[in-house]
Amino acid sequence: MPAELHNDTFLRACLRQPTSHTPVWLMRQAGRYLPEYKATREKAGNSFMGLATSPQYATDVTIQPLDRYALDAAILFSDILTVPDAMGLGLSFGAGEGPRFARPVRDEAAVAALRFDIDSLRYVFDAVTSIRNALNGRVPLIGFSGSPWTLASYMVEGAGSDDYRLVKAMLYSRPDLMHRILATNADAVTAYLNAQVDAGAQALMIFDSWGGVLADGVFQRFSLDYTRRVVAGLKREADGRRVPVIVFTKGGALWLDEIAEIGADVVGLDWTADLGEARARFGDKVAFQGNLDPAVLFAPPEVVARESVAVLERFGRPQRPDGTWDGHVFNLGHGISQHTPPDHVTALVEAVHAHSRRQRQPA
Amino acid sequence: MPAELHNDTFLRACLRQPTSHTPVWLMRQAGRYLPEYKATREKAGNSFMGLATSPQYATDVTIQPLDRYALDAAILFSDILTVPDAMGLGLSFGAGEGPRFARPVRDEAAVAALRFDIDSLRYVFDAVTSIRNALNGRVPLIGFSGSPWTLASYMVEGAGSDDYRLVKAMLYSRPDLMHRILATNADAVTAYLNAQVDAGAQALMIFDSWGGVLADGVFQRFSLDYTRRVVAGLKREADGRRVPVIVFTKGGALWLDEIAEIGADVVGLDWTADLGEARARFGDKVAFQGNLDPAVLFAPPEVVARESVAVLERFGRPQRPDGTWDGHVFNLGHGISQHTPPDHVTALVEAVHAHSRRQRQPA
Repeated sequence: MPAELHNDTFLRACLRQPTSHTPVWLMRQAGRYLPEYKATREKAGNSFMGLATSPQYATDVTIQPLDRYALDAAILFSDILTVPDAMGLGLSFGAGEGPRFARPVRDEAAVAALRFDIDSLRYVFDAVTSIRNALNGRVPLIGFSGSPWTLASYMVEGAGSDDYRLVKAMLYSRPDLMHRILATNADAVTAYLNAQVDAGAQALMIFDSWGGVLADGVFQRFSLDYTRRVVAGLKREADGRRVPVIVFTKGGALWLDEIAEIGADVVGLDWTADLGEARARFGDKVAFQGNLDPAVLFAPPEVVARESVAVLERFGRPQRPDGTWDGHVFNLGHGISQHTPPDHVTALVEAVHAHSRRQRQPA
Repeated sequence: MPAELHNDTFLRACLRQPTSHTPVWLMRQAGRYLPEYKATREKAGNSFMGLATSPQYATDVTIQPLDRYALDAAILFSDILTVPDAMGLGLSFGAGEGPRFARPVRDEAAVAALRFDIDSLRYVFDAVTSIRNALNGRVPLIGFSGSPWTLASYMVEGAGSDDYRLVKAMLYSRPDLMHRILATNADAVTAYLNAQVDAGAQALMIFDSWGGVLADGVFQRFSLDYTRRVVAGLKREADGRRVPVIVFTKGGALWLDEIAEIGADVVGLDWTADLGEARARFGDKVAFQGNLDPAVLFAPPEVVARESVAVLERFGRPQRPDGTWDGHVFNLGHGISQHTPPDHVTALVEAVHAHSRRQRQPA
């Protein structure tokens, strides 16, 4: 029997229901900008995967930002590349480097050999259950995955890339192969997210981190169509509550009209998007999450507070004149930087809570 | 007395005048993907600035792609960072690295000390004149500069950046300082481009390569306003012909309505933009340049041809039913990659010329 949820503001905002304040959480909120995170990582052999594969360490670092800040949601500590790793690609994180796959997928034989071994991801689902228990109803827990396209770009490139040369060459030269990878990924991501719900996740987020590097027309066929397929296959209820789905395409503001139509409850926006315009056009279909530039957090706390208020004002008072509500979840437009001074985050969270309560006062 | 211009297709398309075919040139067309470029660079001590500061070498590498491909325009071989270098920041290119400034601009004293010594850029203007003479009327010569914001981001960061941490911290913390840098840059860029016109440039392009990293609202105040100021100060006629101005903001498709209003003749688009929609909305105000994904050039020549035709079809037949013309200059959506096989460019240029002539046939 799961603990009663004490703060459901995040879930309510996702579903465009009335809230007393605008909920806030930060992408990558459990991360290197926090000294306590670095201390736990040290204990785990200074290894990212050492943290992610231990349900106890994953729980510890997931909870850390909640102990420091009045955040309204927790997010599973993990990596988007666990899914390709469970397809046998051999994920590693070199010291001071990004992720790397030992066996990238670059030809027909490699595509044909892809098998998703979800059982090898037991450590993720155990972490979800462990975090959910540790939260004990404090705030909801968000599970997540990379989008089929974003995973495919890592699988083909074998690592991060500046120009996406290999994956785009395959996409343009062998679209049939690319579609096979994407279909495999869509099935895997769907199963992976549903297993997170079974393990205790109360909301789901799909990170299409690299959708924005695709050409107009190509994005729709090679990224959005497969994200839509995932969304259609997700369990949307658990413990008698709706499990909201958030879709975030970095650089996707251009395609907002199409992204808003794929069945997600919430669309994540980066800082290039006009949040007020997004609300005016699609606020009756979806809630929005975002969209402060993470670089604002390098400025002094009073600037952080002022810019956070500006984002809230851009969205506007969430109650509409007709009494219905639009949904806004405050977040950054991208993951928080490791160079962020932790006390600047305090200023952000306090400003969002205080100002959004004021916004809800009768005029 | 300058030579008569034999192929003015590019200039005509920029000005939305009738053309027999869609003109094509490629950003960074004189570059490392060409063996003849590498050979010349070798002669210049394998140094980028060795090429750029020698009017003869700059002329040679500018002309090289025209000898290989039927391109409709030449662009000055130079770097956008010549302007900050002429402000005393000490530009260098380390082996295998990007550009670096010895004296980045990070405080009030450094901002106050900025002086633009245009006379130190004599080598650029000499290169323009030399190239113009070498072209001898073959195709028009485009001069260029970085935008005030793009230059500012290099000046503050001191080098390329992933997260623009230093320049954005200054922008948010000390907007007054940032505005002073941008005003200085706008004056310098205006003078620099006008001197290129005096030296023989027949069109001008402003590269706002980093405009797209700014937040909505911030882009308008810290990038677009200063690009507008530059455009307003440019000489728009030389040798009795209009000098078209192209403005290219990478990642700027979101803000197309505002970019189309700053007085440029042509707006450059990256591959995320929908060229057909751009034309439908703003084709009566500006011409468009773009927008093939440079990664298409990694695919086989038949795919390159097919995707190039798709871009032309997305724009559509440039004659409108009322007999007036909209303007399209074919280009990539970003600079050509050093990994491009040179013969794939042949396929691109031939496809653009052949198909665009067919498009102009009576239906």
